[in-house]
Amino acid sequence: MLYILDLFGIIVFAITGSLVARRKKLDVFGVAVIAFVTAVGGGTLRDLILGITPVFWVRDPTYVLFSLIGVILTIILIRFKLLPHRPLLIADAFGLALFTVIGTQAALDVGVNWGIAIIMGVMSSVAGGMIRDVLSDDIPLVLRKEIYATASLCGAGIYILLLNLTIPIIAISVSIILTLGLRLTAIWRGWSLPINLIGFTEP
Amino acid sequence: MLYILDLFGIIVFAITGSLVARRKKLDVFGVAVIAFVTAVGGGTLRDLILGITPVFWVRDPTYVLFSLIGVILTIILIRFKLLPHRPLLIADAFGLALFTVIGTQAALDVGVNWGIAIIMGVMSSVAGGMIRDVLSDDIPLVLRKEIYATASLCGAGIYILLLNLTIPIIAISVSIILTLGLRLTAIWRGWSLPINLIGFTEP
Amino acid sequence: MLYILDLFGIIVFAITGSLVARRKKLDVFGVAVIAFVTAVGGGTLRDLILGITPVFWVRDPTYVLFSLIGVILTIILIRFKLLPHRPLLIADAFGLALFTVIGTQAALDVGVNWGIAIIMGVMSSVAGGMIRDVLSDDIPLVLRKEIYATASLCGAGIYILLLNLTIPIIAISVSIILTLGLRLTAIWRGWSLPINLIGFTEP
Repeated sequence: MLYILDLFGIIVFAITGSLVARRKKLDVFGVAVIAFVTAVGGGTLRDLILGITPVFWVRDPTYVLFSLIGVILTIILIRFKLLPHRPLLIADAFGLALFTVIGTQAALDVGVNWGIAIIMGVMSSVAGGMIRDVLSDDIPLVLRKEIYATASLCGAGIYILLLNLTIPIIAISVSIILTLGLRLTAIWRGWSLPINLIGFTEP
Repeated sequence: MLYILDLFGIIVFAITGSLVARRKKLDVFGVAVIAFVTAVGGGTLRDLILGITPVFWVRDPTYVLFSLIGVILTIILIRFKLLPHRPLLIADAFGLALFTVIGTQAALDVGVNWGIAIIMGVMSSVAGGMIRDVLSDDIPLVLRKEIYATASLCGAGIYILLLNLTIPIIAISVSIILTLGLRLTAIWRGWSLPINLIGFTEP
Repeated sequence: MLYILDLFGIIVFAITGSLVARRKKLDVFGVAVIAFVTAVGGGTLRDLILGITPVFWVRDPTYVLFSLIGVILTIILIRFKLLPHRPLLIADAFGLALFTVIGTQAALDVGVNWGIAIIMGVMSSVAGGMIRDVLSDDIPLVLRKEIYATASLCGAGIYILLLNLTIPIIAISVSIILTLGLRLTAIWRGWSLPINLIGFTEP
């Protein structure tokens, strides 16, 4: 079940990666690389840091296949103008929520403490997008504004809290709903994190 | 034999790295770092992802030495204006072909499936140049145009195909000739991968 | 003792990271990420390349805590205009010296040869700042000018030399004093590495 959702997240992130690559006018290879890196980059970094090697997509190449499906889907959907902005934002928020739970759980599986597990959950869900932005020669969007990583942080935190109080399926569901809810509300209301922390910004 | 060719590839990639660093007006340390990263970056990423640690240049510091030789060679050759553009492009194409075969074989050695081995072959040969470009604050050249990674992809594919049909020396030779031929023809004819995939590019 | 100095280095590097993030007008999450990456990035890369996983801050989350303390300290100190430039430069030089010794020793502990150990010492102390600059969409400062990595290189070299001649405490002290002295003299005198190596720069 979680595995199927995980592969869905891979497709969604591959699509957002393809769209960024398209805006940067990269060639076909460039589009595929950026899509792949966006989809698997966060989990790869998590596996490397935790010492889980070979990394997940080497152990299970289905992930590579689904990244590729994401690229092909993007090309087809763009061709027929079937890639509306709003559903994609919702799907991306869903991918964020899924990768947060999966990343946090992967860290707990190797026995790290809860603080590190939260960091790994957030890293799994946002680092792919950060590498995408660095390769595209931008400052990662996630560092600049919007409630994105923060939604993931709350989702990872509530997941660990509930794991100690209740059964896994409830922890998973509540975490996904919370991350998704925060992210979608942030998009809808235009919420951002403060930049100017009591005089922090340079004048 | 393959080891000597590998070290030759290290020198060539260190030279191309040094030349990019020179164009960016980095200092001596910056030139050495960019040269080193260009030469060993792809193989390092491959080793990390496959879980082959310590990575190859820690196990065999000869690679570090040859990166350094590449830097010193560049400085000397530039001084005496002995670094013509055309031979360097050919040498770089040769490095690409070598690193493709070596990277693909290194992946097969740890028992991954053929799809992952191809990805590792391409990654070994192009990721060093990508890290070089990111450190130099450019969008990686390889993502934007030209048949570069594509030549490596074909070389890795034919290598794995021939390994199952014939003896290693033939697989190695054909793969190197194919990658080299594709890359040199692309330079000569000015071939690029399409950017505008049936309406993919933004207007 | 070395452990306490190490944590001090983490705080200092987290502060310099926070200041760069502030200049780039990142949000709170962005500031925390850049601070964390600056503080632990070098050691993380070292651990990955040497195959020491999980990396140090997963094994001992105290490092994560101290990065966070660095961020909070920066926000408080900025608020009360208590972050003078000069003491911070000195503290940063001290962090550089500490991370050089600790990184070199960590490499020696896993049995690599002296050349690799020196590279690891320099990497531990400068790679965090390099990743910080890449995420901030700059060419890493350390590649462009100033005696920074060079001071670390000398410190790592003298450390290994003295380890073979005398007791560890003397090797550690001399190395720290040398790195610190070189770096501070470079700041004071405005020393830089040459860019134009006998005609190396493009006209």
